[in-house]
Order: sequence, then C-alpha cells, then structure tokens
Amino acid sequence: MYKAIIVGAGRLGRIHGINLKNTGMVEIVGVVNPSKEKGMKLASELGAIYFNDFQSSLKAMKPDMVIIASPMNTHANLIIESAENGIHVFTEKPMGINSNENSKIVSSVQKNKIKLQIGFQRLYDDSFINAKRLLDSNAIGRPLIAELISRDPTPEFLPYLPYPGAIYDDFVIHDFATLVSFFGFKRMTVYSTALAFSFPQYKEAGDYDNTLVNVKYYDGPLVNIDTSRCSKYGYDIRLEVLGENGLLKVENVTDYQTFVYKGDSVTHPPYLWFEDRFRDAYRREIEAFVKAVMNDERTFPDEVFGMQVGRISDAAKKSALEGVPVTVE
Amino acid sequence: MYKAIIVGAGRLGRIHGINLKNTGMVEIVGVVNPSKEKGMKLASELGAIYFNDFQSSLKAMKPDMVIIASPMNTHANLIIESAENGIHVFTEKPMGINSNENSKIVSSVQKNKIKLQIGFQRLYDDSFINAKRLLDSNAIGRPLIAELISRDPTPEFLPYLPYPGAIYDDFVIHDFATLVSFFGFKRMTVYSTALAFSFPQYKEAGDYDNTLVNVKYYDGPLVNIDTSRCSKYGYDIRLEVLGENGLLKVENVTDYQTFVYKGDSVTHPPYLWFEDRFRDAYRREIEAFVKAVMNDERTFPDEVFGMQVGRISDAAKKSALEGVPVTVE
Amino acid sequence: MYKAIIVGAGRLGRIHGINLKNTGMVEIVGVVNPSKEKGMKLASELGAIYFNDFQSSLKAMKPDMVIIASPMNTHANLIIESAENGIHVFTEKPMGINSNENSKIVSSVQKNKIKLQIGFQRLYDDSFINAKRLLDSNAIGRPLIAELISRDPTPEFLPYLPYPGAIYDDFVIHDFATLVSFFGFKRMTVYSTALAFSFPQYKEAGDYDNTLVNVKYYDGPLVNIDTSRCSKYGYDIRLEVLGENGLLKVENVTDYQTFVYKGDSVTHPPYLWFEDRFRDAYRREIEAFVKAVMNDERTFPDEVFGMQVGRISDAAKKSALEGVPVTVE
Amino acid sequence: MYKAIIVGAGRLGRIHGINLKNTGMVEIVGVVNPSKEKGMKLASELGAIYFNDFQSSLKAMKPDMVIIASPMNTHANLIIESAENGIHVFTEKPMGINSNENSKIVSSVQKNKIKLQIGFQRLYDDSFINAKRLLDSNAIGRPLIAELISRDPTPEFLPYLPYPGAIYDDFVIHDFATLVSFFGFKRMTVYSTALAFSFPQYKEAGDYDNTLVNVKYYDGPLVNIDTSRCSKYGYDIRLEVLGENGLLKVENVTDYQTFVYKGDSVTHPPYLWFEDRFRDAYRREIEAFVKAVMNDERTFPDEVFGMQVGRISDAAKKSALEGVPVTVE
Repeated sequence: MYKAIIVGAGRLGRIHGINLKNTGMVEIVGVVNPSKEKGMKLASELGAIYFNDFQSSLKAMKPDMVIIASPMNTHANLIIESAENGIHVFTEKPMGINSNENSKIVSSVQKNKIKLQIGFQRLYDDSFINAKRLLDSNAIGRPLIAELISRDPTPEFLPYLPYPGAIYDDFVIHDFATLVSFFGFKRMTVYSTALAFSFPQYKEAGDYDNTLVNVKYYDGPLVNIDTSRCSKYGYDIRLEVLGENGLLKVENVTDYQTFVYKGDSVTHPPYLWFEDRFRDAYRREIEAFVKAVMNDERTFPDEVFGMQVGRISDAAKKSALEGVPVTVE
Repeated sequence: MYKAIIVGAGRLGRIHGINLKNTGMVEIVGVVNPSKEKGMKLASELGAIYFNDFQSSLKAMKPDMVIIASPMNTHANLIIESAENGIHVFTEKPMGINSNENSKIVSSVQKNKIKLQIGFQRLYDDSFINAKRLLDSNAIGRPLIAELISRDPTPEFLPYLPYPGAIYDDFVIHDFATLVSFFGFKRMTVYSTALAFSFPQYKEAGDYDNTLVNVKYYDGPLVNIDTSRCSKYGYDIRLEVLGENGLLKVENVTDYQTFVYKGDSVTHPPYLWFEDRFRDAYRREIEAFVKAVMNDERTFPDEVFGMQVGRISDAAKKSALEGVPVTVE
Repeated sequence: MYKAIIVGAGRLGRIHGINLKNTGMVEIVGVVNPSKEKGMKLASELGAIYFNDFQSSLKAMKPDMVIIASPMNTHANLIIESAENGIHVFTEKPMGINSNENSKIVSSVQKNKIKLQIGFQRLYDDSFINAKRLLDSNAIGRPLIAELISRDPTPEFLPYLPYPGAIYDDFVIHDFATLVSFFGFKRMTVYSTALAFSFPQYKEAGDYDNTLVNVKYYDGPLVNIDTSRCSKYGYDIRLEVLGENGLLKVENVTDYQTFVYKGDSVTHPPYLWFEDRFRDAYRREIEAFVKAVMNDERTFPDEVFGMQVGRISDAAKKSALEGVPVTVE
Repeated sequence: MYKAIIVGAGRLGRIHGINLKNTGMVEIVGVVNPSKEKGMKLASELGAIYFNDFQSSLKAMKPDMVIIASPMNTHANLIIESAENGIHVFTEKPMGINSNENSKIVSSVQKNKIKLQIGFQRLYDDSFINAKRLLDSNAIGRPLIAELISRDPTPEFLPYLPYPGAIYDDFVIHDFATLVSFFGFKRMTVYSTALAFSFPQYKEAGDYDNTLVNVKYYDGPLVNIDTSRCSKYGYDIRLEVLGENGLLKVENVTDYQTFVYKGDSVTHPPYLWFEDRFRDAYRREIEAFVKAVMNDERTFPDEVFGMQVGRISDAAKKSALEGVPVTVE
C-alpha cells in the first residue's frame, strides 16, 4: 500500500481522498489543513491523522505521494518541497500561477525524478476523451475553427483571493489545457478581452469574471474560448470543432431525462455541477495517477504540459491587461 | 453486519452482490449457483463461500437475507423457503410467474413476517423517480393517455426458456410495475397483441418478441405499452404521460455527449445498456432494501405490489393467447 | 383555365381556395356556404360569386372541379352529385362517414369516371413523405412496431356535432390514412379504447376525446395509434416505426428556433398549429390534384384509398363502442 | 402600382423580384444585367423589359424603386445614381464596400430624401426577431457574452472576386449587422484573426475563408463572431447570448423532421441552404421596404445602420490585415 497525504480539506481534497482510498492501493495517512476543525473532519472520514503543517506531516508519515488541493498560490512551494523529498505529486490546477513558478517546478520535478500530475479533470471526461479520439482519428479532418465554452454558476462568495487576471489561472486554465490537448503547443498568438460585471471586488483587484480569448495557431485552427462566472442557468462546459470534413461537438450534460412540456416552456433538468458532471473524470484521473506511479509510467497531464498551459495563461493575462495580442512560441 | 446469500451467479447476482457489499452493512457469506465454476468465481470476488445447493447454504450460513437472481421459474420456491426460515428476501423480477405462485408467496411472506422486495429497478431510476414525483405533485394534472416504450437490443441467444407468453413475465413486467407505480392498481381492461418476428424458438413455444398492451383504467388514463426485443439501435426505455395540463416525458439516455455532424448524418453516442443505464438504480434499490430491513420499514416494491403486477401480466398473457380483452378488478 | 367551386367557407375552404388560385391554372368561380356573410366574404377574396345552394352553383357556373370543405356528414351527397355531373372532386377528409356511404361514393366516382382526391394532407407533409420514402427504400428493414401520435390543442368549442364514435371519422382518420399509406390495407384486427374526459357533450353523445387504437397486421407490424383532443402543450403529430434494422421517427415541429434557458426551464417556441404545420402540405395536395386532372392521372389518395381507410374507422368505432376486437379483411 | 427595376439577374435578383411582384403593389418594369441571356430570362419570368445598361433603364422606365442585387463593388454607384434621380433603393448587402463609399451614399440618400434599405435579411428571420424581442424585453437581463456563428457550405466556385479582407464585406457583414441590431453601435474594440484554408485564390488575393472577430463593447458585452466558408455539414447560422439572468439561443434550422436511428448514427435532415432558411425573411424584408415607401416611414435597416456596420467591417479588415486591435468610436 502506498501512503498518501492530502493537502487541503476542501471539496476537492475530499473528492481526491475518497477516490484515492477507493483504488484499494493507497492508504491516506495524513490530512494537512490550516483550519483544524475542517482538517480533523476529513482526516477522520479518511482514517488519517490531521496535521496543521505540511513539513511536519512529511516528517511524521514519510508518504509516497502528496495530493495538493490547497489555494493556487501555495502549489509551487508544496510541489517543490515534495519533489525534494522524492515524493510523487498530484496537484489541483494550476501547477504554478505563472511561468516563472512553473520553470522552477519543472526543474525540481525532473531533477528529483518524481511523478507530477495536474488535475485537469476535463481531459478524463468521457465526452472529451471521445471527442479527442475522434479528432485524432481524423473523423472531421483538419481542424479549422474551434469554440470552447465554460460557464460557472454565479458563486455566492468569491472562490479565491483575486489578483490581476487571476481568472485565467483559476478557471480559463481548464480551456487552455483542452486547447493544448486537442491542438498541441505550437506558435500561436493570444488575444483576450475581459470584463468584471458582477463582482466589484474583482474589478478593484484587476481581475475579471467574463473573458473571451482568441487563439490563432499559425497553421490553424482559429480558436475562441468563452468563459463566464456569471451563469444563472447552471454549469455549462461545451466544445465544438469545425473540421474540413464535418463538425465535432461536446454538448452539455443534464442531471436526468425528465421533462414537462407546457406549451411555451419545458421544465428542464438542471445541468450538473462540476462535482457531478466530472465525478467519473475525478475518479479516472486519480486511478491514472496511481497507475503511473505503480508502473513507473509517464503521467498525463505532466509538468511539461503544465508549463505549456501556463505559458498560454500568462499570454492571455498580459493581453487582457495591456490590450495587445501576445505571441507564444 | 447482516449476513447475505446470493442465489444466482449471473450478471445481476454479481451487481447486487457488489452493491450489497458496498453498503458497508452486509457481509456476503454465500453464493449459490448450479454451475460450480461460475459460482466459485463470484464467491471469490465477494469473499463468500460457494454452495451448489440453496438448502445447504441456509443451514451452513444462517443468513439474515437472501438475494435471488436465478431463473424466474425458481423464484417462488426460493422465496417461500426463505420466508419459512424467517429470512428477508430481495428477489429479481418477476416475483412468481403467475398469480397462483404469487398468492402462495404473499401468504408465506405475511405469515412469516419477513421483508420482501422485488427488483423493479426502473422505479429507482432518477428520471423515473422525478417523473413520478412530478405526476404526484400534479405538474400535468389528471393523466389522460400514457405511452410506455421498452426496447431491448436483439440478444444473440435466448435470455430464458420460453413458454406461452413468457415475455410478459420476463420483460413487459417492468412496464406493468411502472403502470402500477404511476397509476395505481384499479379496475382495468387489458388487451394485448403480440408477434414472434425474430426468434423461431419463441414462435414454436407460443412466446413472442414484440408486444403491444392496451390498458384501460375505467376512470382513465388509457395506457399503451410498446415492447420489443428486436432493437438494432440500442436499449431504449421511455415514458410519456399526457395530462390535462401538459406532457410529461422520460427520454432515453445516451452514454456520453460527443457528436459528429456530417451533413446528412450525426454520429450518435450509443444508448446505455441496462447495466449502465440503471447502475445507480440498482445501487439505490439494494440500499433501500437494507435500510428497510434495518429500520423494520415497509419495502418498496413489496409482495402486494408484486401480486398486483402479476395479475396484470396474467391478464396480458391470456389476452395475447386468446385474442380477447381481459378485465382485472 | 379550369373553373372551380368551393363548398364551405371556413378555414379549410379558404386555404384550399387560395392554394387553388395560386396554381395559376384555376379560376374560382363560386363559393357555396349556408351563412351568407361568411360566404360572401370568401367569394369576394377569391373573386368568385357567392351561392347559398350547391345545385344552383353547378347550374350557373358549370365548374370543372368542386372543392368540398363543408361538415363531414354532407360529403357523400356532394361528391355523388358532383360525380353525376361529371365534375372532379377534391374533398376534405373523411370521404363518407361510414363504409355504407363510401361504397356508394366509389360506385358513383367510378361509373362517372371523375377524379376524386381526399384531403389527407399529412401524406403531403415533407417529414411524412421522407419517412415513407425511407421505409419503402428499406432503410430500417421490415417494420415490427409503430406508434402514431396525434394531439390537438383543446378546442374552446366543439369542432363538429358529435355522434357515437365520431372522433374516429373526424380526427383519428388521419392516422388511419397514414397507416394504410405506410403499411398497406391487409387483414388486420382493430381494437380501440376511448374515453370522454373534457367534453361532457361528447360523453352524452357517445363520442370521445381521447382514444388508443391497437392495430395488428397479421404478418406485422403491430401499430398503436394515440390521439387526444386535450393537449394543453400544443399541436403534436409524430410517428415512429421500429424496423428490423433501426428506428424511423417523425418528430414534432416548432414554430421557430429561439430558446431561453433559465436553469430549470427552457422557454419553448410553440408547436405549429395545423394550418402552419401543414401549410406546404395543403399547397402540395391541391397542386397534385390539379396536375392529376390536367394529365388525366390517378389521384392520391383516391376513392379506393378512402374506402379502405373508412373500413378501419368503422372497425375502430365498433370496437370502442362494443369493447371487442374487430377483424378487417 | 409602383414601378421597380431589378439590377442583377442572379439568384437574389430573382428572389427579390418575385417577392416584390407578390406584394401586389409593385410592377417590375425592367431587369438590368450584363449577360443578355440571363437578364432576358428573368425579365420574361417577371413580365419586364430587359436592359443591358442601368442608365438606359432609368430613362426608359422612370421607376419608383430600384432593387440592387449586382456584385458588391457596384452598389455605391448604383445607389448614388438612383438617389440623384429620386428613386428609392433596396440594395443587397453590403451597402458600400468601405466607409469612404458609405459616407458618400449616406450624403446622397439624405440630400435626395430617398428611402434606402439594406438586405440584411437575417434581421427579418422569425428566430432572430424573437431573439431580439426577448433581449429587448429583458428576458435574460444585461448581456454579458455573445457568440455569433455563421457557416456556409464550401462553394464549388468563388462567390466573388477576392480582395484583401473581402470576406468581411461579403459574409461577416451579416454578423456585424446582427451585432449592431442586438447590442447597438457604441465605442468598441475589434480584433480579428483569419486564415485562408481551402481557397488558394483567396490566400493569393489577401482574402480569407475562416475568421474569428472579437468585439469588446466598453460597457459590455464581449462578443465573438465565428465564420467559415468551409462547412461540409451544411449551412449553419446560430446565436447565443449569455445574460445576467439566463441564456438566449437561436439554434440552426433543419429541412424536415424525419430521422433514422441505427445505434451509432442518426440520419439527419439537411440544414436549410440560405434561400430556404431565409425564404420568409426575404419576403418580409421586401414587404417592409414597400410599406416604408408607401407610408413614407423609416426603413430598417437604413443607410445610417449600413454606415455603422461598414465601420465595424473596416475595423475588422484592418485588424486582420495588420494584426492589431482597432477601436471604433
């Protein structure tokens, strides 16, 4: 049995912890969280010991793997510290919050020869897996234009501490990961416009709640990424790719299939919130991580992928803040 | 921990066994199956002991509950024997294969005060649960006309030993259960036509592979049940109810949401096969059974429900075989 | 230019009159209607002369064709009188209101060698035309089971004077026409249940507002016809045929394609009312009738087709009124 | 009766000519076309006289209105010449092919007090009309993000003589018109990327066949326009607007509603080609033009609207050619 420590006792720390335990290959030995109450609760649920402090947990438990589900600005240090102790890491997205952090992470991961996997769970969703398989098998020919659409229900409180352009690192990053997975990392020009509509705190901090990102690959395709945190109609994750020979679509997913027709309206089952929409994807990505560690295989998506995604995020932030197109090569 | 024995080591025996184990409340202590190899395999997977014979398993293991997933003509004896030993029973559908068997079952269950639950898992599907909740909350008003549609992919081998009208007990029974659950058991006239298109063995045995059943409740609604074992486009379970104030629909479910458009065709994700379509429903019904046993609550659907459903099935068999409407009161 | 007389100045008289005029081949010379005001209004719109009386209009105008859009119990006499004067007839459905009337009509039409076409406009709808073409080209193989669904919005006043089972002649007749067109006229057993839910006048008169008709062709398919006059969600005309190799569907049609999503509901464009849903079909059937007259070709659907459809309607009426299956051969 | 001259005997000249004639208010007195054969054919169909030359047609027929459906680089001169003769003009899009031409047109139209209407027929489509009505009635609240998607089937020959960025004037102009109609003409920044994938002639001429246009209104919304001439799955015109309170969508339209399901594919009715998709819209816009002339009302969309749309098109051309965002105020 592998020993694992969970850092962060929020929703995703809990989801990953349970999925890890259910693989039957891993014992959760520690939960690290600043708030004791929340940390103790998850530790108890997972049969683990609670730690207030990451370093103490490493010393005490000598884990084989660490699962990072803490705020995004803490990821880089936690990854590097784990790497230097020879511990494999599964981290929630983003890897670091800029390319500078990401460079240091890649160096440390590669020097210390640990496995790193990033939690871009959308790449483990069966609709997206099927879409990519179809694209790769040339079902629609060469891609010409693509639309990636991601919309979160309006949160009742801010999901993170905003800084200029933070939405690209926290939210749009999923679409950048899809972009790299579907179309590769090649010379591209990135242009983004953005606005803060609903959250004055975002506006004050130079952050946004709605963005459009135009990505031009030099040999195609042209890609538009449309994101909003202001959806009142539910969670909505879609993709469409126009290829030379047809159109590939991933449609949104609803909770069940019961409808009531009343003439001018249909009662509509709710769209699934991310924990449900991606329930299977969260399980699969953790299983893939454990399998990669067991068989000493390459993880997906790994630190190089994370570095590339971060480069695009940096370009989009710069573009939105300065109003200019930014070329990534 | 409750101790349970699984009778029948086929697909459903395995599904129920795993779900039962995953409740955390039940230990699977025995698997009964005529074929030793198959029985041993499931017993090993569930951490149980293999038995060739039901009575020996009861004597040896003294279980609290029995899960019956053996051929339908064996259900009645197994249920009655369990009841006489004071053991709770979850049985796959149908309860017995005619009203004569069902009467004996109901007597024995009630005399011995055991819990009986029947595996009409469709009633635990979230789309059907939501549909019933909407109907009961008067979302469409009084029901006028309903359509129940159930289609199985053509099997490569016969799913059971046919006898005259066996399809009503084995397959249409799910729709009869939905009928009773949605519209109650009241005076009704049942008329059924049926044909054996694809399986000459069915025709020879007086059985069918396609049926229509017209059910007229005397105070409404009128209900049509459309079933076929000859679907080449996949599994398809639907319902629609026209009410005084609107239309209620349960649509079919697809496996994922990736589509390719090519001008005159769309690549279509496969419809889910019953094990996947009803994966959550199978889990929920077993959890409900364990909960009913624990809390000494009424099971759903119980032996009285099973008796009512069997009365309708008998009427439909008689109608198809004799070509006349049959009234059930 | 052919000369035509329109009998009946209601909605369908007007639709047929305008379509006839727009062919550019026909002059509307007379409009016959009992109410003078309504008749004058349509006559003026079509540039025709108003007549209170059919015979006078024939004498005065010596028309080449008559369009019958008057109440259904007047059709037989009008057709026969036209036939005896050698005038071609396009009549709204039904042809006559029972097989007795229909026999006389067929004799008279054939003796006098006129063209008769019946207004089963659904057979000229492009979705139904395409469905039939696909069925005939073996797209789904041999048909096994079919569902025909027809629902009218609840009318605010009674659409006709009810008599026992009149709904079969007035409304279900469209589905019987689809049945004969798609699956032919062969030995079949017809069984129908019906109820009068919304209109006490129907109940008193022995008529119905909701029906189910089970039709068993002896060599297949099994067909269910589901009709209701009590739809609160709009007009809804659908068809599905399960064949050996796949499923053929005609879905309902909406007015436009604008939707608003609000989380648990979708604003839904209204379903088209029959005048709009079948606007092109009404035009096509009249054009086909004029073409048949011009080229001395067979009409579709003709008096023999009408006779067959009427036989099925009579069987369904008898079945609903007496509660027994009725065989048609 | 008004007298009208049609300039251009192509598909749209014919559509407009027939619709104009069908209003019953207008006589088509002349058809102008460089190719005599094509011009004579349409003239004969419309009961008009053929002219090789526009000025001769004006002198000879003294029309009240001119319908321009000739190549886009001829529009400006034809409009101005008509205006100077006091003749009302309906012109196919675009008005002129740049803001310089458009200024001259606006001056001439306003000085000579004629009516000008531009053929942005999408604004007369019932789905788009309903969408705008819903937006204006605050059905989704303040608009945050919008997607406009327009895809043409790959043409077998080039639809026009290409010049740098001509696609914006010929094709994307429809989306710019929708933009102005839905969100107004206010300070905005326009950024466009584009590629020539399928037509080497476009590439050589500095033109494109696929474009993305990012439009940022300063007080919102953010709008993405996605266009392609390379659709192999058919014509596809869609819109979606995310508002503060919900999502508004215009979905694509199919030809009929017949489907065949085969397990992993659905036979899909073709998407309507523009002449069919917008058949009613073409009729409505001509009727609106005639009504505006009759009642001396303002046309929609008029020359000021056309000027605004042209300013956005110029900005998008400049952005695509120079790779920079362009602000329009």
